[in-house]
Amino acid sequence: MNRVTPSSTSPKRPRIGITTGDPAGIGPEIVLKSVAGGEVRSAARAVIISDARELKRQASKLGLPCPYRTVTRGELASCPEEDVLICDTASLAEPVEWGKVSAAAGRSALSSIEEGTRLCLDGTLDALATAPINKEAVKLAGCPHPGHTEMLAELCGSGQPLMCFFAGDLRVVLLTIHVSLAQAIKAVTCERVVSALALTDREMRRFGLRAPRIAVAGLNPHAGESGLFGREEIEQIAPAIEECRALGISVSGPFPSDTLFVRAARGEFDVVLACYHDQGLIAVKCLSFGESVNVTLGLPIIRTSVDHGTAFDIAGLAVADHNSMVEAINLAAHLVAAARDGERPVPV
Amino acid sequence: MNRVTPSSTSPKRPRIGITTGDPAGIGPEIVLKSVAGGEVRSAARAVIISDARELKRQASKLGLPCPYRTVTRGELASCPEEDVLICDTASLAEPVEWGKVSAAAGRSALSSIEEGTRLCLDGTLDALATAPINKEAVKLAGCPHPGHTEMLAELCGSGQPLMCFFAGDLRVVLLTIHVSLAQAIKAVTCERVVSALALTDREMRRFGLRAPRIAVAGLNPHAGESGLFGREEIEQIAPAIEECRALGISVSGPFPSDTLFVRAARGEFDVVLACYHDQGLIAVKCLSFGESVNVTLGLPIIRTSVDHGTAFDIAGLAVADHNSMVEAINLAAHLVAAARDGERPVPV
Repeated sequence: MNRVTPSSTSPKRPRIGITTGDPAGIGPEIVLKSVAGGEVRSAARAVIISDARELKRQASKLGLPCPYRTVTRGELASCPEEDVLICDTASLAEPVEWGKVSAAAGRSALSSIEEGTRLCLDGTLDALATAPINKEAVKLAGCPHPGHTEMLAELCGSGQPLMCFFAGDLRVVLLTIHVSLAQAIKAVTCERVVSALALTDREMRRFGLRAPRIAVAGLNPHAGESGLFGREEIEQIAPAIEECRALGISVSGPFPSDTLFVRAARGEFDVVLACYHDQGLIAVKCLSFGESVNVTLGLPIIRTSVDHGTAFDIAGLAVADHNSMVEAINLAAHLVAAARDGERPVPV
Repeated sequence: MNRVTPSSTSPKRPRIGITTGDPAGIGPEIVLKSVAGGEVRSAARAVIISDARELKRQASKLGLPCPYRTVTRGELASCPEEDVLICDTASLAEPVEWGKVSAAAGRSALSSIEEGTRLCLDGTLDALATAPINKEAVKLAGCPHPGHTEMLAELCGSGQPLMCFFAGDLRVVLLTIHVSLAQAIKAVTCERVVSALALTDREMRRFGLRAPRIAVAGLNPHAGESGLFGREEIEQIAPAIEECRALGISVSGPFPSDTLFVRAARGEFDVVLACYHDQGLIAVKCLSFGESVNVTLGLPIIRTSVDHGTAFDIAGLAVADHNSMVEAINLAAHLVAAARDGERPVPV
């Protein structure tokens, strides 16, 4: 499996690239608020990847500090000690209007993601934390992907990634995401469950869990109640679990999903594999009350993201809550450290 | 609509019938623990509907007090002031073995439910709170129904009831329950959603909410994202909401279900209609951490239930948590009072 290779000169605090997402949304605001706080600075060195002129203009309008040095990608390596830098994408010809969908804002968001991914892949950055994009805007800008996850997979040239949410000690991986519930049911195949379990196990080990205890949620109510309410558990999920256990993966289930997430949150399991989007995300949002972080599994880079959208309705009002962005940056830093620890030879 | 008609001699504290469920499970234990506490006694007069000899035997084995007078159904009316009575079903020929599925235990559980329902229907009792039954045991006893809800509908001769969960100020109604997820998707029809919304509105008004604010959860991720991830929202749910709004029901949606339940729990809505079992119950269990109460909507009687099972694995150990039973009894008492208030003429 591909791993982040920290550059040999990396000091202890990892260097986290932070994209500002759609500039017409709350992305720039929550990024600026996050890097201004001591919590992020003690965990990471931040590199904001953004159109620098637009970022500074918004900072001034919002009354937020933005005294950071602007550099080009080439200059990044030569100023390793600074707490916060802006890596200028120079992607906007003119100011963006808050709350308005536009191709220009979409293009700017995309260029921030592309630059951040490149800088992670070449080892200049240790990880990427992303602010939200607007689907319509990136579509107007010519991007065929429905979201970050699919975009990053293409940029990294990797296989099918998985969306995972961290909420305290609860981690939830989604087997399917942006498809109808009817299609999600069809996607619950033994092959797919095996591959998701293997990827989850590998990634959790990479992130420092020595023997991750994985639980699989049933698709049907009561996990099918022995076939009475659906047979996917018997025909697809149980054989997949069996196969993975034979490979040495610590996985159990399928369990009734209504109680499984509470059991996991109480410490019985490290990770839950959910069969579909809402099954996993209802639990994550109810248990975390909006403080979860999205982590993409299966990429050669480490990438985290806020769990909310662009909030066009409150963009420019300086009232956005930046807590999820802080959590995303801190978790990225934590995962970099965990991945590094994993690379050290175990002392004899 | 049918209403509970409290008997004319009813004093203020309502008389709540409490079934003990499967006697081989934790039912008798949690009922005895509940009625011993001051919280239940200050809210209700309790009538335990059970095989009296078995109840007293278990109380003695478990070290729980059971000094209550045993009466027949005919004697119930003549002792209205007592805090706790046992209405003897005399349904067991011999002692039950804890943790063991049997037709005898199933028959005893059924007879407790039948007696309780009759006593509610004839006005002797104001409401029924039920302890858990074992599906296998009632099947062995010849009952064709998968659960209480379906059984009660038959006993009351009522139409299709709906399962509803109360967890603090959050109320969640389930459009479908014990069917596979694939079947649940097919059951999301405009007709069914309209009828569920009308019933929910009527029942919430009966229980004291003057103008209940109902929200409907989307079936697909992001509530279908304008048809990109499924069309049930556009073709079935939205027209049903439209139709109900025209009838004066305060209903909105369909909303993305991952964030809807948190919004409702924060006070934005009084009730959420969930499309399927796990959608509603993941939210209820994650938000209440096991302290929700199940209320059956659409019956002529008021019926609440614990939100857990028979726990055969810990039956007889005296370690069962009776909190959900206390909540179920107290909510039953609260709903009786709310329904009575609703029957009073509004003062001019």
